[in-house]
Amino acid sequence: MKKVGIGIVGFGTVGAGVAEGLIANADLLARRCGTCAELRAVADLDITTDRGVDVPAALLTTDSMGLVKRPDIDVVVELIGGCGVAYDIVRTALENGKSVVTANKKLLAEKGEELYALARERGADLYFGASVGGGIPIVRSLRDGLVANEITAIYGILNGTCNYILTRMAREGADFDTVLADAQRLGYAEANPSLDIDGYDTAHKISILTSLAYGVTVPFDRITVEGIRGLSQTDVRYADEMGYAIKLIATCRERGGALEVRVNPTLVPKHHMLASVSDVFNAVMVTGTMTGDTLYYGKGAGRAATASAVISDIVSVARHVAAGIPRTTEPFVPVAESRYRLLAPEECESRYYLRLMVREACGMVGRFATILGDHGVSIFAASQHEPTDAQREAGYVPVVILTQPAKTGALMDALRKITEAGIVQSMPLALCVL
Amino acid sequence: MKKVGIGIVGFGTVGAGVAEGLIANADLLARRCGTCAELRAVADLDITTDRGVDVPAALLTTDSMGLVKRPDIDVVVELIGGCGVAYDIVRTALENGKSVVTANKKLLAEKGEELYALARERGADLYFGASVGGGIPIVRSLRDGLVANEITAIYGILNGTCNYILTRMAREGADFDTVLADAQRLGYAEANPSLDIDGYDTAHKISILTSLAYGVTVPFDRITVEGIRGLSQTDVRYADEMGYAIKLIATCRERGGALEVRVNPTLVPKHHMLASVSDVFNAVMVTGTMTGDTLYYGKGAGRAATASAVISDIVSVARHVAAGIPRTTEPFVPVAESRYRLLAPEECESRYYLRLMVREACGMVGRFATILGDHGVSIFAASQHEPTDAQREAGYVPVVILTQPAKTGALMDALRKITEAGIVQSMPLALCVL
Repeated sequence: MKKVGIGIVGFGTVGAGVAEGLIANADLLARRCGTCAELRAVADLDITTDRGVDVPAALLTTDSMGLVKRPDIDVVVELIGGCGVAYDIVRTALENGKSVVTANKKLLAEKGEELYALARERGADLYFGASVGGGIPIVRSLRDGLVANEITAIYGILNGTCNYILTRMAREGADFDTVLADAQRLGYAEANPSLDIDGYDTAHKISILTSLAYGVTVPFDRITVEGIRGLSQTDVRYADEMGYAIKLIATCRERGGALEVRVNPTLVPKHHMLASVSDVFNAVMVTGTMTGDTLYYGKGAGRAATASAVISDIVSVARHVAAGIPRTTEPFVPVAESRYRLLAPEECESRYYLRLMVREACGMVGRFATILGDHGVSIFAASQHEPTDAQREAGYVPVVILTQPAKTGALMDALRKITEAGIVQSMPLALCVL
Repeated sequence: MKKVGIGIVGFGTVGAGVAEGLIANADLLARRCGTCAELRAVADLDITTDRGVDVPAALLTTDSMGLVKRPDIDVVVELIGGCGVAYDIVRTALENGKSVVTANKKLLAEKGEELYALARERGADLYFGASVGGGIPIVRSLRDGLVANEITAIYGILNGTCNYILTRMAREGADFDTVLADAQRLGYAEANPSLDIDGYDTAHKISILTSLAYGVTVPFDRITVEGIRGLSQTDVRYADEMGYAIKLIATCRERGGALEVRVNPTLVPKHHMLASVSDVFNAVMVTGTMTGDTLYYGKGAGRAATASAVISDIVSVARHVAAGIPRTTEPFVPVAESRYRLLAPEECESRYYLRLMVREACGMVGRFATILGDHGVSIFAASQHEPTDAQREAGYVPVVILTQPAKTGALMDALRKITEAGIVQSMPLALCVL
C-alpha cells in the first residue's frame, strides 16, 4: 500500500483533532481507501502546550515553512486561519507542486482566484471541504454528487452562532441582546461577534459555494450582506403567527444567466426543511436541474465535525497523490469574465415581509397600498395588529404585509416614498421571505 | 483530454435519461471533471420505440452481451433491473475487467457479496450511487465524505411511495386504502404495490447502506421488515396528538459490536428533521463518531434524479479509468465472518407506541401496567381515549402508551401475556418510536 506524507500547519483545536483522527484511525482509513495517509509533521509556534492528543514529539516543529518544503511531505494541511501566514504557507506549498487541504474560508473567499489558478498550473489539488458546513459533505456533493446538474439555486443556513440565537429567540421569546450575551457566555459566540452576527462569515461561505456551483469568483464587496443584529422579538412573533421562522439565509440563484448572491435574515415557511434546522446546526438546500431540491444538514462547526471534513479531504488528496494524478477541476474565473452577470443589490428579487407603523387616519392604508402598487409591488397578505398603549398615544398602528415577489430596488423606492409622504412613523422594516 | 467509452444496457426511463444527460451535457461534464465520458452504445431488446431522446441510431444495438465485450466500451452501465439478465451483464463486464455502474438495488442486496469480490479481484470499479436515495448523494457521502467516521446509526426514509401515502394520511385524514388507490391512479404506486408498501424496497436499500457503513453483507432474510399496509387512521391521529408523525423508517445501528438492521413504521417526533420529510421525498440521517448527526434529503426516485446519480457515478468511474486506477475499497464480508454480530429481531431495542383495547373493569390498567413492568418495560406516557359507542357497548376502552426503550422480545412476551390474561380485546398494536 502506498504511503503519502501529510504535514499539518496549525496545531490548534481543529489541528489537534485532525492529528488525533489520522493517528487513531490510520487502519480504518487505509482499509477504506487503499492508501496510507501518514502524518509526518505538525508545525505550530507553540509546540509545548498539551493538546490532549498523543502526537509523537519527533513530529512537532515550529518551522512551518520548513515543513512545507520537506521532500517527504506530499500534502500540506493548512489550519492556521486568516490571510497572513496561512496565505504564505498555501502559496508556497502549491508553488512547490504540493497538494493543499485547508478549512480557511476567509483565505478562499479573498485569495481563492489566485490560489485555484496556481494549483491548476502546478498540477496540485486544493481541497477545502471543511470551509463550508463543517462536517456536512456539501463541497464534495457539489463537486461530485451533483456533477450532472446545472445548479439553479442554493439556500443555506451557514452560521451556527446566528442559528442558535434565532432558535432561542423563537423558542423562548427572549431578546436578541439577552440571547447574544448568553451565547457569548456559553462560548457559542465570540467576544467580538461581528463576523458571525453581521453575516460576513455566512457571506464567505456562500461565496465559496457560488464558485463551486458556477465556476466563478465573486468580489466579496459585491455580495449584499444583512446580519441579524437587532432583529426584534416583535418580528419573530409576527413571523411565527403567520407560519414562518426567521433564519439567516445565504442565497445564490441563477436566472437567465444572472446570478443573485446575498445574505439576509429571511422568513422561511415552517413546512420548509430549512425551518426545522435548529440550534447550532447548518443546512444547505441545493436545487439542480436533474435532482430538483436536495438538502444537506449537520454540525457546521466544532473540532470533531471540522476534523472529519479535513480528514476526508486528506484521504481523497492522498489517493490522488498515490495515483500520480491531481483532481483536475474547472478553474474558477472572475464573474466579470464569465458567462454570468452578477445582479446589483437593487436588481435582486424576493417576496418581502414589511412592518410599518401607519399613521392612524382615514385612507392611510389605501395610500401606502397604492404607492406599493405603483412600484409593481403586489400585496400577498396583510394584517393590522393591535397597537400598544404607547403606539396608540403616538397615533400609529402596526401593520404587517407579505408581498409577492418584488424587485428590491423598486420596493425600497416605494418604502422611501411612503415614509416621505408621512404615512408611516419611520422607514418600514423589510425582511426577505423564502 | 482522455476519452472513456460508455455503454448503457437498458434503454428504459432511466437509461434514456442517462443517455440524454451524457449527450446534452458532454461539455459541462468534461469541463468539470477533466475526462470525456463518451457514450458509445446503448443496448435494449426494443430499440425502435421513440424515447424522446436524440441518440444517434448507430449507437443502438439489441446485442447487450456484445456491447459488454466490445473493446472500446470501458464502463458498462446496467439499467435493466432485477437479478436475471442484469446479473449476467454485470458479472460478464466485471470478469472482463470493465467497471460497472448500476442502479439495481435488488441485484446488490442479493448478489452484492459475490459482485463486490469479483470487482475487487479484477481491479474494476462497481458503483451504485443510484441504488439508494435516487438523486441524493448518500452512497458517495458514506464512502467519501464521512470516511473519517465510525458510523453509529443510520435512520432513513427510503421509499417515496410509502412516504407519499403516510403524508396524505396525516394531512387529509384519509384511509390507507383510499390513498393507496389514489397513488396507484397517479402512478406513484405499482399495480402490485407489495415491494413498496410491505417494506421490501426499503429493506434492500438499508441492506446496501449497512454494507457501506460497516463493510458487511447482511442476509436479506435476517432483516426484520414491517410495512405500512393497513396502518390505521386512528394511530396516525393519536400520534399527531402526541406530537409525532408516522414514517416508514429503515434503521441500522451499532452498539458494542452488535448491529441492528430493521424496517418499521415508526413514530418520529415532529421537531426531528425526518418528520419534515413529506410526499415522495427521501432522507437519510447518518450519525458519525466525528460529525454527529448529518442528514441528506432529496427525491428518491424519478427519471432525472436517478439519471443524475448514475451520471455522477459514470464520471467518477471514467476518471479512474482514464487514470488507470480503480477506486479500491474495503471489501464487504458476510456479517457472520465480520467483527459484528447481527441482532435477532427479539434482541432489538426501541421505544414503543402501544394501542390497547382494555376491558372496562376495575383494576385492569393496574394489571397490564404490572405485566409490562415485570418484563422490564417502563411506561413513559399514557392516555386513555374516549371510546366510540361500539367500543363502549363491547366493554372496552382505547388506551395509548409510550414506553421507555425496551427489548422487542420482552415487550412482545408482555403483550402476549396481557392478551392471554383477557385484559385486552385482542393483541395490542405496537409501533416503534424514534
